[in-house]
Amino acid sequence: MKLYTFPPAPNPKRLDIFIAEKGIEIETITVDLMAGEHRKAPYLSINPWGTVPALVLDDGTLMTEVIGMLYYLEELYPEVPLLGSDTVSRAQILSWDHRCFFEGFSSVAEVLRNSSEAFVDRALPGPISYAQIPDLVERGRKRIHGFYHVLDKHLEGKPFMVGDTFTVADIAAYVFVNFSGWVKETIPDDCQYLLAWYQKVSERPSVKS
Amino acid sequence: MKLYTFPPAPNPKRLDIFIAEKGIEIETITVDLMAGEHRKAPYLSINPWGTVPALVLDDGTLMTEVIGMLYYLEELYPEVPLLGSDTVSRAQILSWDHRCFFEGFSSVAEVLRNSSEAFVDRALPGPISYAQIPDLVERGRKRIHGFYHVLDKHLEGKPFMVGDTFTVADIAAYVFVNFSGWVKETIPDDCQYLLAWYQKVSERPSVKS
Repeated sequence: MKLYTFPPAPNPKRLDIFIAEKGIEIETITVDLMAGEHRKAPYLSINPWGTVPALVLDDGTLMTEVIGMLYYLEELYPEVPLLGSDTVSRAQILSWDHRCFFEGFSSVAEVLRNSSEAFVDRALPGPISYAQIPDLVERGRKRIHGFYHVLDKHLEGKPFMVGDTFTVADIAAYVFVNFSGWVKETIPDDCQYLLAWYQKVSERPSVKS
Repeated sequence: MKLYTFPPAPNPKRLDIFIAEKGIEIETITVDLMAGEHRKAPYLSINPWGTVPALVLDDGTLMTEVIGMLYYLEELYPEVPLLGSDTVSRAQILSWDHRCFFEGFSSVAEVLRNSSEAFVDRALPGPISYAQIPDLVERGRKRIHGFYHVLDKHLEGKPFMVGDTFTVADIAAYVFVNFSGWVKETIPDDCQYLLAWYQKVSERPSVKS
């Protein structure tokens, strides 16, 4: 299989941390988002949506969504388990991954894509042009802070997002917080549990690399 | 376990179709969204996010995200499989569920919640108040049509969204199209594959009920 990616971007980072935690190696091709390579040939013939990361299996099957790739790689490389070791854990990890994406990650993207000159007429990912909506910048910042507090409340008394080990739920929450730094937001002082967890996760070799 | 839900709403519908396809029964409590029951006690003591559906297990574990509930129920009731019968299928079903939610479902919600008087100051789900942003109405309609065409292109030559059987990917896509009717959008005539698929899926007993 081949992984098309751009390591500095947040969605690719979800996958990179997962791969580093597993200790596996995957053939990787860099698609330079800064140079716009994702929006022209030859990349669009590989992934017509123009998003990264994209995973292409040996039989040509294209995977474009991180959650699908994580599930696929977890089945292929079950050790170390990162998607849960029992039914309830796995359900809750999928749920937190979803929440971190929809409530956290998307909020940061909302701020970034509706304020940065680099995203004029590209306020949403994918091949269709969408104009920026300035009101989304303030809303996105409010959403980011709302989600910091969701995570903080959830992490009270817990070593990790789900269960006693580091999982995809921690990857999702970490990448959200890290990505929020791109729009100059940081965890507020009243989120002690989130701050302590973030500090701990930031020290993992998979995250530092 | 107990399922707190409001059958007319689209997120609960994803779960209801799944349950009907499985032929299982789950104790269900209706939370009347029209009467605002999800935004006050006693429901907020059950699910502090104030969203439906919510699944509460016998040990008190709360599940608030549909994808987590579907995964949990699939493990508990493996027949008929609705989340895929092999690794690649399951990865692709998770991916399409994600896309249908983020690109499809959210687009309809964007139109509805930013235009309807019923959602003034509640432009996003959950306990935090968000003002409506009128520009999102037009953007949402454009996104809906973009996603109709994504699905149409994908369905060319295929009986179902993933593989040869009805799965959660079909449920997600069906509920998106059905939900788009709430904001008076319909599949355009140039989406023949989507139209034919939607007609076929609409005739399933699980969907009609």
